Amino acid sequence: MKLADLTQQASEWLRASGPSHEVVISSRVRLARNLAGMPFLSKCTPSQQTELEQRLRQHVVASDVMGNGFYVDLTAAKPLDRQMLVERHLISRHLANAKYPRGVAISADETVAIMVNEEDHLRMQVLRSGLQLDQAIEQINRIDDALEQRLDWAFHGRFGYLTACPTNVGTGLRISVMLHLPALKLTGELDKVFHAARDMHLALRGLYGEGTKAAGDFFQLSNQTTLGKTEQQIVEEFTQQALPGYIQYEMQARDALANGPERTGLDDKIYRAIALLRSARMMNSDEMMYLLSLVRLGVNLGRITDIPLQTVNELFLLTQPAHLQRFLQREMNARQRAEARAELIQKRLSDH
Amino acid sequence: MKLADLTQQASEWLRASGPSHEVVISSRVRLARNLAGMPFLSKCTPSQQTELEQRLRQHVVASDVMGNGFYVDLTAAKPLDRQMLVERHLISRHLANAKYPRGVAISADETVAIMVNEEDHLRMQVLRSGLQLDQAIEQINRIDDALEQRLDWAFHGRFGYLTACPTNVGTGLRISVMLHLPALKLTGELDKVFHAARDMHLALRGLYGEGTKAAGDFFQLSNQTTLGKTEQQIVEEFTQQALPGYIQYEMQARDALANGPERTGLDDKIYRAIALLRSARMMNSDEMMYLLSLVRLGVNLGRITDIPLQTVNELFLLTQPAHLQRFLQREMNARQRAEARAELIQKRLSDH
Repeated sequence: MKLADLTQQASEWLRASGPSHEVVISSRVRLARNLAGMPFLSKCTPSQQTELEQRLRQHVVASDVMGNGFYVDLTAAKPLDRQMLVERHLISRHLANAKYPRGVAISADETVAIMVNEEDHLRMQVLRSGLQLDQAIEQINRIDDALEQRLDWAFHGRFGYLTACPTNVGTGLRISVMLHLPALKLTGELDKVFHAARDMHLALRGLYGEGTKAAGDFFQLSNQTTLGKTEQQIVEEFTQQALPGYIQYEMQARDALANGPERTGLDDKIYRAIALLRSARMMNSDEMMYLLSLVRLGVNLGRITDIPLQTVNELFLLTQPAHLQRFLQREMNARQRAEARAELIQKRLSDH
Repeated sequence: MKLADLTQQASEWLRASGPSHEVVISSRVRLARNLAGMPFLSKCTPSQQTELEQRLRQHVVASDVMGNGFYVDLTAAKPLDRQMLVERHLISRHLANAKYPRGVAISADETVAIMVNEEDHLRMQVLRSGLQLDQAIEQINRIDDALEQRLDWAFHGRFGYLTACPTNVGTGLRISVMLHLPALKLTGELDKVFHAARDMHLALRGLYGEGTKAAGDFFQLSNQTTLGKTEQQIVEEFTQQALPGYIQYEMQARDALANGPERTGLDDKIYRAIALLRSARMMNSDEMMYLLSLVRLGVNLGRITDIPLQTVNELFLLTQPAHLQRFLQREMNARQRAEARAELIQKRLSDH
């Protein structure tokens, strides 16, 4: 297994197989950890950064937590490969663009990614399709335990795990789900959703996290505080109080649209979207996200029956700029990508 | 033959069979005539208006110039029927909305329409598909001669035929062509076209004449002055000097688009247009005009091969508001029309 193989396969989280996958695309948990006796990354000397990367890489690779995975040295990786890993949600933009030694260990099915020398020394992530937060937490705790056999985490008796950013101090746990909320967008109820998230101290953000816009009705919902709560409390509040409300709210909006007086207006949008995806000769990312989002809604509502949900999910990823270039094995400008994107979409959608 | 049959047939001018029909949809010539010894319409008393309508109707019907046609008493006609005749270019908006006795005689193939009590006592029109101005002028002169056997036209030795509006005095002849100029629109060269028309004392207007906007890249080009020139001069200037330039200019622009670096951009527009027309569940008139215009271009460029040009031409007419309602035999609001329009377009385009 190596980096170049990634574009040939679908990440586990795109399989649209998990629970509540109509609304919850994927579940993600992340732990932030730092080595005791070493400064945070931003305070490290270059030689300490190099030492950290070598030591952590060695232990992660030796620890067997990656299964049949591989390690990517991001300092040596090409910009296009780094961008591809960002698009696949396997590394952060921060890690992609950093200037010091750094890397990421990725399991073969891409459910596990361990970033070395991100803002914290280690950031471990489990990413799974649908609503699988409990399983993801179990899995990340096993990884944390395995690494703790080898490494000594910076831990404070009163505060908990110490992290570079205060918002991560405590459990170091961030949980998030990627939500598809097209009906709430269409019915103009997203504002309410944003208010509700704020009231529950949750963050609702665009597809690629902080500071990115919400593309094609996709949102990341995550907890904001990790201090003063146990893992158990954080997970329970998130999965039992907040999330079911969002899912139900979106499903009600879909039902109202699909069976109410605006039914024809909705069908019009859905059938136009699939027609454009199948016919356009040029398409930019924004339009693609907008149209695929409507098609995803159409598949979930049973309006479109000849395209599997997994194909739609995969297209979101395959048509991102870096994926497109890696998949077709040539560098392209925006105009060339728009043409290649349209062609790829057409081909994939006509295969079914 | 009667009014209700009109929606079941395609007007001759939609057949896309005449010369230069890629650019020239139709050719129209019109003569304005007034009876000697009677005031212009706007100066008539109500009883004079009634007398005029009865006398003119009688002579037109008896004259045999209508072939196998029929006369429509517009005072008795329903608003929807009057609107339908406007959409078919058989009467003017002015005549449709006037409040006094008036009517129109229409030949079975709709090439001839004689409006009674328009701005002038009689306005005779010949409308034919493609570039057939010479034939149209021959035909209208025969009609004029036939009616002159029965009626005495207001004529002045120095000015020529007298008309209600000074711009028609002289020959009373207006010639016009409906042009489809999508490529000049796409290449941003329409401004030049408008300037050229003004320099040649020609008027370039929207689809339904004065004061209407140019819908879907369709324009009416017509002569502006009729005084001080013979019929022959007017026709020669128009058909030999002005028109060939427009046709050539549009054809060059099409060629540049279809075979130049913007080729993919053009294909993108064309294939999106046909896809939307075949898939939308709601469509308003403006969008329909825009999309059908692109499809018409696509058919003419050989990009779309499974739809005859006549089908495209007919759809422009059949999907106009009044036609839609007469064809489906029910009154509809804008929203209902948008749904019915989308359905009708889809059906017509899938028949091929």
